[in-house]
Amino acid sequence: MPVNYATPAPEQLHAVAGVRLGIAEAGIRKPGRRDLTVIALDPGCRVAGVFTQNRFCAAPVQLCRRHLEIGGEMRALVINTGVANAGTGEPGIQAAWQTCTAVARLLGIEERQVLPFSTGVILEPLPVERLVAGLPACVADLSADRWHAAAHAIMTTDTVAKAASRRVEIAGKTVTITGISKGAGMIKPNMATMLGFIATDAGIAQPLLRRLVREAADESFNCITVDGDTSTNDSFVLIASGQSGAEFDSADTPGYAQLRAAVIGVAVELAQAIIRDGEGATKFISVVVENGREREECRRVGYAIGHSPLVKTAFFASDPNLGRILAAIGYAGIDDLDVAGIRVWLEAGADKVLVAENGGRASSYVEEDGARVMQQAEIIVRVDLGRGAAQARVYTCDFSYDYVKINADYRS
Amino acid sequence: MPVNYATPAPEQLHAVAGVRLGIAEAGIRKPGRRDLTVIALDPGCRVAGVFTQNRFCAAPVQLCRRHLEIGGEMRALVINTGVANAGTGEPGIQAAWQTCTAVARLLGIEERQVLPFSTGVILEPLPVERLVAGLPACVADLSADRWHAAAHAIMTTDTVAKAASRRVEIAGKTVTITGISKGAGMIKPNMATMLGFIATDAGIAQPLLRRLVREAADESFNCITVDGDTSTNDSFVLIASGQSGAEFDSADTPGYAQLRAAVIGVAVELAQAIIRDGEGATKFISVVVENGREREECRRVGYAIGHSPLVKTAFFASDPNLGRILAAIGYAGIDDLDVAGIRVWLEAGADKVLVAENGGRASSYVEEDGARVMQQAEIIVRVDLGRGAAQARVYTCDFSYDYVKINADYRS
Repeated sequence: MPVNYATPAPEQLHAVAGVRLGIAEAGIRKPGRRDLTVIALDPGCRVAGVFTQNRFCAAPVQLCRRHLEIGGEMRALVINTGVANAGTGEPGIQAAWQTCTAVARLLGIEERQVLPFSTGVILEPLPVERLVAGLPACVADLSADRWHAAAHAIMTTDTVAKAASRRVEIAGKTVTITGISKGAGMIKPNMATMLGFIATDAGIAQPLLRRLVREAADESFNCITVDGDTSTNDSFVLIASGQSGAEFDSADTPGYAQLRAAVIGVAVELAQAIIRDGEGATKFISVVVENGREREECRRVGYAIGHSPLVKTAFFASDPNLGRILAAIGYAGIDDLDVAGIRVWLEAGADKVLVAENGGRASSYVEEDGARVMQQAEIIVRVDLGRGAAQARVYTCDFSYDYVKINADYRS
Repeated sequence: MPVNYATPAPEQLHAVAGVRLGIAEAGIRKPGRRDLTVIALDPGCRVAGVFTQNRFCAAPVQLCRRHLEIGGEMRALVINTGVANAGTGEPGIQAAWQTCTAVARLLGIEERQVLPFSTGVILEPLPVERLVAGLPACVADLSADRWHAAAHAIMTTDTVAKAASRRVEIAGKTVTITGISKGAGMIKPNMATMLGFIATDAGIAQPLLRRLVREAADESFNCITVDGDTSTNDSFVLIASGQSGAEFDSADTPGYAQLRAAVIGVAVELAQAIIRDGEGATKFISVVVENGREREECRRVGYAIGHSPLVKTAFFASDPNLGRILAAIGYAGIDDLDVAGIRVWLEAGADKVLVAENGGRASSYVEEDGARVMQQAEIIVRVDLGRGAAQARVYTCDFSYDYVKINADYRS
């Protein structure tokens, strides 16, 4: 059960002109489930992406990077679940390439115009014959209103499909932004999440699009952690079809700030949905670190808290074991940190409790206050480092029996 | 239930001439349990220690550092469990100081000759009155053969007391080395473990002793992780009484290599005991990383594997989900790592299975082989980075339901 998240209804996910999606059951790992998606892009679409920094990056990630570096127009994305095609060596590259070839043939485009994505079990060969055999059904299914189905077809251990959509009026034009994501475990993205796809019918110049995909990742998928494990397949792709007629050539184009905010808003919604559906999650925790010298040190403190199994099990137990939070701040690796200047609050909605100051427990703190906040499903841990003006946010979930159960059972 | 570890019998823990221990029930956090230990040192003992790098380091750690910096002869250690006296600000320093004063008065020594240690819950005030009231009973109990009792009196969530002892003949003299340790969670020491104390009746010059305590920590307590949380109270102390008559002035003194190996051996045994008794542990896992460019990168790979909740839950499930190990190697932060040169084995005793090479699953690998090794209680993960001659070891345990249970329930 995700924490305060439900998949939007199909009609809430607005079609993006120029982008069609088709899904199929290809039996890639298990029969009888939707596991293959093709996203077909009209001519004129621009695409930019960010990918995992894991050195064991998957074969499809390697091909995506290569195709985007070559440049030229991207015309299709193909996504399978079940098998990640990671840790598969040269045969894995061949399998990803065969996938691109098959998609290109069906759509009458070139191999290098296809971006492949895989998610699922690592170190197992991709059953490329079954995948290729499923592609015609995907292509037959192509339609602009299949975002809801596609959100389902890219799931692995996710318990809910994740999607977000909004429409904004910019300079007299209606711009649509719709996206989907997947991921629940092996989540500590580094440049992107497991898989995230956002499309807009705004037109965005390629250099600006490349910048925007990074900025959006930094505010969303690069701020989340379930278990601190960076996946081999993390990919986040932003597509701009231009078919709304709203065109953005540079960051100075009127209305761009509005578009940027809307794209980042969708990315944050999709990233948070991954945490709300984090394996075994019963709580959604925002760690807000303020007044650091620079963003990077704020992020380190945020991740130290967000990764700590001790902090996360305390949240699971609704136990205000605040010493664990202070210990995590202390080992975040900021060598010259003066703990006497730090203040820490626990917050839930309007309920704000100062828990630590002057290197220890706040004199006003009473355990009932901490316990009351800890019982909520949405909690903010606010840390004031008291030494600068930078800030960062990290989103995480608690650590429950079910995390262990899910990960001890996965594959079996 | 610890993994293949049982506390040595009292008679197996050899007394160290010049070192006496006394314990008491002071009711520091809960009544009816041994929670206070005094270790009294004869004149002429030398002492060196290493302490946590956590910025929220506990008040007693701050005092220990101060007293060791002042120098002079240390004459006593005082250790309480129940309350860590960490995150307690200035009142915490006062409480630790009062503890030293009380010990000094009872033993007729000076405050700065006393080293205080605390372990237990963070952020709660130390009940120093109850502690001080318990000290006379400790002093009355002082005896050279109380190592076994002291090992019990320093436990917190430990399920077994941890101790090791050995005697070695060096240059015609019998040298004794005996130590105790505690710790089961919040274990990812950075310069030392939760608490570790080793005493020898060898005489070791102060600069050499300072070097040896660091070397021993680096080979033992700095190689272990239960949950990646670096404690606020980690301390490891080495005491040399000199009463055996064996004297070591420099690393070139004949027999020093033998003494060094024996001290490190005891430290490794104590550090491994902490992992064998790791919270919820059902398996003891040694990650051996070989042929790296330098020790630091080997350690990073070892810790990436040893910290990964996904790897650790797979070990709990005896599931050879090897992709998780490769993913961890991939995100260890070695930017120029060529995954094609890496080989990975799973080993248990003489059973060695090559699982990965050439960037993917080894062609000889079959799942039954991996599953057979994963079912053992003692497993080695051997990683050959294939790019140098350095190596490192990290000891860890698996991640089970009981880890969550223990840490969700602790304090309650």
